[in-house]
Amino acid sequence: MSFPKDIEIAQNANMLHIRDIAKKIEINQEDLEYYGKYKAKIPLSYINEEKIKQSKLILVTAINPTPAGEGKTTVSVGLNDGLNKIGKKSIVVIREPSLGPVFGIKGGAAGGGYAQVIPMVDINLHFTGDFSAIEKANNLLSALIDNNLQNKHHNLNIDPKTIVWKRVMDMNDRSLRSIIIGVGGSPNGVMREEGFNITPASEVMAILCLSKDFEDLKIRLGNIFVGFTHDKKPIFARDLKAEGAMAILLRDAIKPNLVQTLENNPAIIHGGPFANIAQGTNTILATKMGMSLADFVVTEAGFGADLGAEKFMHIKCHYGKLKPDAYVIVATVRALRYHGGAKKGEYENPGIHFLEKGIENLKKHIENAFKFGLKPIVAINHFATDSEAEISFIKETCASLGVRAVVADEFTQGGNGMIELAEAVVNGIEIYPNHFQPLYNVLDTVENKIRKIATEVYGATDVVYSVKAKNQLKNIYELGFDKWPICMAKTQKSLSDVETKIGRPIDFKVTVREFEFAAGAGFIIPILGDMMRMPGLPSVPAAEAMSIDKNGVITGLS
Amino acid sequence: MSFPKDIEIAQNANMLHIRDIAKKIEINQEDLEYYGKYKAKIPLSYINEEKIKQSKLILVTAINPTPAGEGKTTVSVGLNDGLNKIGKKSIVVIREPSLGPVFGIKGGAAGGGYAQVIPMVDINLHFTGDFSAIEKANNLLSALIDNNLQNKHHNLNIDPKTIVWKRVMDMNDRSLRSIIIGVGGSPNGVMREEGFNITPASEVMAILCLSKDFEDLKIRLGNIFVGFTHDKKPIFARDLKAEGAMAILLRDAIKPNLVQTLENNPAIIHGGPFANIAQGTNTILATKMGMSLADFVVTEAGFGADLGAEKFMHIKCHYGKLKPDAYVIVATVRALRYHGGAKKGEYENPGIHFLEKGIENLKKHIENAFKFGLKPIVAINHFATDSEAEISFIKETCASLGVRAVVADEFTQGGNGMIELAEAVVNGIEIYPNHFQPLYNVLDTVENKIRKIATEVYGATDVVYSVKAKNQLKNIYELGFDKWPICMAKTQKSLSDVETKIGRPIDFKVTVREFEFAAGAGFIIPILGDMMRMPGLPSVPAAEAMSIDKNGVITGLS
Repeated sequence: MSFPKDIEIAQNANMLHIRDIAKKIEINQEDLEYYGKYKAKIPLSYINEEKIKQSKLILVTAINPTPAGEGKTTVSVGLNDGLNKIGKKSIVVIREPSLGPVFGIKGGAAGGGYAQVIPMVDINLHFTGDFSAIEKANNLLSALIDNNLQNKHHNLNIDPKTIVWKRVMDMNDRSLRSIIIGVGGSPNGVMREEGFNITPASEVMAILCLSKDFEDLKIRLGNIFVGFTHDKKPIFARDLKAEGAMAILLRDAIKPNLVQTLENNPAIIHGGPFANIAQGTNTILATKMGMSLADFVVTEAGFGADLGAEKFMHIKCHYGKLKPDAYVIVATVRALRYHGGAKKGEYENPGIHFLEKGIENLKKHIENAFKFGLKPIVAINHFATDSEAEISFIKETCASLGVRAVVADEFTQGGNGMIELAEAVVNGIEIYPNHFQPLYNVLDTVENKIRKIATEVYGATDVVYSVKAKNQLKNIYELGFDKWPICMAKTQKSLSDVETKIGRPIDFKVTVREFEFAAGAGFIIPILGDMMRMPGLPSVPAAEAMSIDKNGVITGLS
Repeated sequence: MSFPKDIEIAQNANMLHIRDIAKKIEINQEDLEYYGKYKAKIPLSYINEEKIKQSKLILVTAINPTPAGEGKTTVSVGLNDGLNKIGKKSIVVIREPSLGPVFGIKGGAAGGGYAQVIPMVDINLHFTGDFSAIEKANNLLSALIDNNLQNKHHNLNIDPKTIVWKRVMDMNDRSLRSIIIGVGGSPNGVMREEGFNITPASEVMAILCLSKDFEDLKIRLGNIFVGFTHDKKPIFARDLKAEGAMAILLRDAIKPNLVQTLENNPAIIHGGPFANIAQGTNTILATKMGMSLADFVVTEAGFGADLGAEKFMHIKCHYGKLKPDAYVIVATVRALRYHGGAKKGEYENPGIHFLEKGIENLKKHIENAFKFGLKPIVAINHFATDSEAEISFIKETCASLGVRAVVADEFTQGGNGMIELAEAVVNGIEIYPNHFQPLYNVLDTVENKIRKIATEVYGATDVVYSVKAKNQLKNIYELGFDKWPICMAKTQKSLSDVETKIGRPIDFKVTVREFEFAAGAGFIIPILGDMMRMPGLPSVPAAEAMSIDKNGVITGLS
């Protein structure tokens, strides 16, 4: 008998009514805003700063992503089930998936195997409408900008060539990457270059995820930078009086969503910013909501620790006044073989010689955790092809660094496969004092902040700036936008800025090709390579194989 | 004290939990799919063909729209409250509003004054996500089309120049009307002309509203016509294997939404196709759901009776196997003054001389109702500036045609102001046998069907076809698409195809400039003028004045 598909496991789950999940974490069922029987929004009034101080925050991150797969989300979901299994009150708090990959190739993002959040189909489709609301708020600002250009009177004198604000759509649609709008003469607006990003790449998404309350959301929306006037004055969303209407559209989206795991433990899923040009982690409000309702919160950050965890520490922790109490690095034997040079056809099979080399990637991420004042735990996400020798090798290497490595078997065993990891995490939190500290001071110069990340986290020897980047940096200082955290835009595949440099690259410099900034979200984006903000569909899109019968049973969704 | 704003009335309403509204119409509260406390989706299993046969369908339509306002929605909502007030079990079934006008100029579409459906803010914003789901399904097909063009292998040989399928966005955004996509070279797709329509203009919307069940929806989605191959073969959505994934996206959107009126009577709001290039009325499933749950259903059709009611009879009744039992024509004294030539500044004040001329518009719509075998009732939607003499004149004129005219005072009085109209409607249904018949046989030639509408409904002497239209007509016959109902695309402002010809134009011909067809929805669209499918924002958009405070209280939304 073959292992069942994710959707089959999800469809056969014994789901509890969401009011029964809410009861476990002491939410009054009348306070919930239901979206059907299995999804609900939690009012922000449940956020409790006193409880947050008592709650322990567990960050799940990973080695650099490989085609062999790591499984941060399954480990996060499984660890939460494991913690509940050993009697701890724990909530997993993760991101909402984008529709783009669902119809493209990657599939959804609700975990997998026996470590999933459910209702899987709902979560992977419209869920509670948050992405659509973000899309509408983003595109309302776009419509107001173009309408302002069109107005003969009552206009802001915006120079169309300087507009950096783009429309978004939650779809893999390469044809919208670069477009010309306003074609067809005067009634159709002012002709200009434009493009669509995918919705998770919207700054509105980043803002929603960093806002500490509704007032803060409005202020941040108003601070979105749009472009310059013909006489070089900066124009913000507030100049277009856009933030009120945008905030109205986000009235419900700002509230965290409650669902459950396959083992009927509470899960909060909220927000889903890209991890390349944004912070790549769920909303601050969702994390704080989880911490208000449980003693432990398991959360994750996108891509490898060099991107996701670094941004978690420097952006999310900064704005949310949070600090992680535990730090789990997910690795797989397969991925470490890949980092040691194993190609497709090789990394699926035991190969200790590959692993011995590839483990350098894991070692660097372990070292980095210590730099943040955190003692990491390594989760070896188990595959059937892992050999005993390889697992022992990882454990021994970690032990030599003073770090515990534990096999995580959530995919086939659910919470039962995660008891050892759960106990190790709880034990670690009890034993080791929390010495969390950021690597840079946010008030330092932009160059110094970037240097810290590049040298300390990536292991680079130096940072090089293009002429373009130097000019844009001047702009950032002139606009007074230099006192923000850094949000690096870099390949996730390598510790360096060159995606082919797997393992642990040494003796390299990174190059800042250009700068962007998110004035509403509040971060500076040094761009170290080409960033994909609107993916395309593959030649055979997943959508083609999807079907739904008259009873609503869906097939082909993963 | 001035009359309160719509939003103030709505925010001060005494709303019941939606489960209590459901109880009134015998829906088990466990069967509801809640969207918060005041909105819910009703499962399609509640549709009951036997009950539908017993239920009475009341169609609310109007004279030709004018800037002076008619108020079909307020009359519909108020009539439902009136029917409930006189002890009848009645549901009002209407369309969902589009976000475009909400942020533009017109405001939402949830009624007004003391005749509103609530929660007004929710209904006017994302509601239960139906519009977003339709938008996504539409745009997924677009992404699949452009992805197919991009594929070197595994492609359908589609000729980009022939693609008629457009993307949609629920926004007033003129800059997206006409655009060039795929700019920037090979990785960004195939460059071609494209445009965005507003979401209610999507054929997916029309399809959702005409589908009789989920299977029918899938078939219709598959039948959407996309364009031709380079060797002139038609390509449909099913050729791109798009219909399964599109249907998955519409899994929840197909279920009717239950809300309430200000007087806590049940209201179903579902679907919102444009009334110019589509059928302009709520879903067949919502109407049938209402009829399954109540003895009376009040529903409406967009624009004047020449467009909305005609399409209701020939498209919705055809596909839904429905027939109206009562026919209410809404008129206002103000609008009839306008049809008599009163300009702004004149139509707001008593002016019987204008009215004497303008009433010809109403008379024509009354005559048309008789042609469909229906005995109409006229609702004089009351304004404070109506004079007794004018109201008497309308009543007498109607009486001379054998028709009753009743003052409707729902705006300031709610259901109490609608008791006379409610009694007149019930009385009419009891007294007069239902002789409903369509004006044309759907199997007749396209030209004959168009001629029937133009001569019988509009009062035209003849139909003229442009050369382009003649060629396209040939195409329609060749494709075998001629046996569908006609969905006229014509100005709503006049009975003719020239918007300045108000009142009752005579001695005119109408010109079919071109043809389109909706192969999935199943209708032929003769285009008699310029159709607006993507509105623009005004120079001061309503969005600018909108605000929301930290307690979520919204101002500036209407």
